[in-house]
Amino acid sequence: MAQEKQLVVGHKNPDTDAVVAAIAFSHFQNEMGMNTEPVAQGEPNKETKFVFDKFDYKYPRITTVADTDKVMLVDHNEDQQSFDNIHDVEVTYVIDHHRIANFNTNLPLYYRAEPLGCTSTILWKMYNEEKVEVPGNIAGLMASAIISDTLLLKSPTTTDEDKAALKSLSETAGIDYQSWGMEMLKAGTDLDDKSTQD
Amino acid sequence: MAQEKQLVVGHKNPDTDAVVAAIAFSHFQNEMGMNTEPVAQGEPNKETKFVFDKFDYKYPRITTVADTDKVMLVDHNEDQQSFDNIHDVEVTYVIDHHRIANFNTNLPLYYRAEPLGCTSTILWKMYNEEKVEVPGNIAGLMASAIISDTLLLKSPTTTDEDKAALKSLSETAGIDYQSWGMEMLKAGTDLDDKSTQD
Ligand SMILES: [Mn+2]
Ligand SMILES: [Mn+2]
Ligand SMILES: [Mn+2]
Ligand SMILES: [Mn+2]
Repeated sequence: MAQEKQLVVGHKNPDTDAVVAAIAFSHFQNEMGMNTEPVAQGEPNKETKFVFDKFDYKYPRITTVADTDKVMLVDHNEDQQSFDNIHDVEVTYVIDHHRIANFNTNLPLYYRAEPLGCTSTILWKMYNEEKVEVPGNIAGLMASAIISDTLLLKSPTTTDEDKAALKSLSETAGIDYQSWGMEMLKAGTDLDDKSTQD
Repeated sequence: MAQEKQLVVGHKNPDTDAVVAAIAFSHFQNEMGMNTEPVAQGEPNKETKFVFDKFDYKYPRITTVADTDKVMLVDHNEDQQSFDNIHDVEVTYVIDHHRIANFNTNLPLYYRAEPLGCTSTILWKMYNEEKVEVPGNIAGLMASAIISDTLLLKSPTTTDEDKAALKSLSETAGIDYQSWGMEMLKAGTDLDDKSTQD
């Protein structure tokens, strides 16, 4: 029986992790037999565009309105950060590393939150647990999301699991995360939207 | 360095799963190196008392007020079902199989919800994932919690994972879950508090 399609989405004003986690979780779920499509709630910022160019990955469809009855949320849970019509759809999964607030469901669901530096680190654990292979280009995106959220493992939210995930994903992607991390963080800063004001 | 003690608690007006899940998760966390104590938010109902007598297990301390700074919640998440002073403490873990509502945190946390028939089924999965042995008497309590929540695998919320958990835990506990299930459900009904009104 064909699975009913579900969208996978990160928060509004997406950062690298929000878009990458949607792609990585959608790929994981499809490998597990689900039928999902990753979407983004906005245009890529400069850092995110630089990352997608580097790994030659197509940026997902942009929408802030769910056009499926069921959805999966990544890298957020709060209503105001989610689809405009979030109250009209069923949330079946949440994968997140933030506090929980303004989130209510009518039905039981899968919810996995861990106090780690990045949603992509949790997803890396899920790939490992279920022995699903991370494709090289998605590994590059996920490594970049960890670099972005943890400021190259320097933020106070960084955990040993983020370090292990970045190391492993960088090997899969064939990148040196120190040099790539400096390059992408610099690109995000240099080309930041704020710089157009300067 | 000694771990700071944390309480593990189920919901108010506890049913068998609420008390058993607190005991099972506390034991699991202590095996993982944490320092936790399970507590119950009320006296056992007749079914729960019958279960604790059968497996010769001491009912936990009863309190509706947390006397630790950090707490772990099982089998519930809604504020009104939790400790009276839930807003004054930090929730570090939630393990639950209910919808999410009226639950807010200031900080990131571990949250694991799955749409299964019983919290004890999720805990059985966690023991397996981390290769922690379930002691025989706790296995008997967990099997009983699954029987209670799923009405001996007959409720519409019952999943294949609940069936697998009940079978496995019954073997560990050395019980025939069909005969024990009928006995404990009957005891809960026969000796129900309502019967004192008859
Ligand atoms: Mn984000
Ligand atoms: Mn993130
Ligand atoms: Mn319960
Ligand atoms: Mn329950």
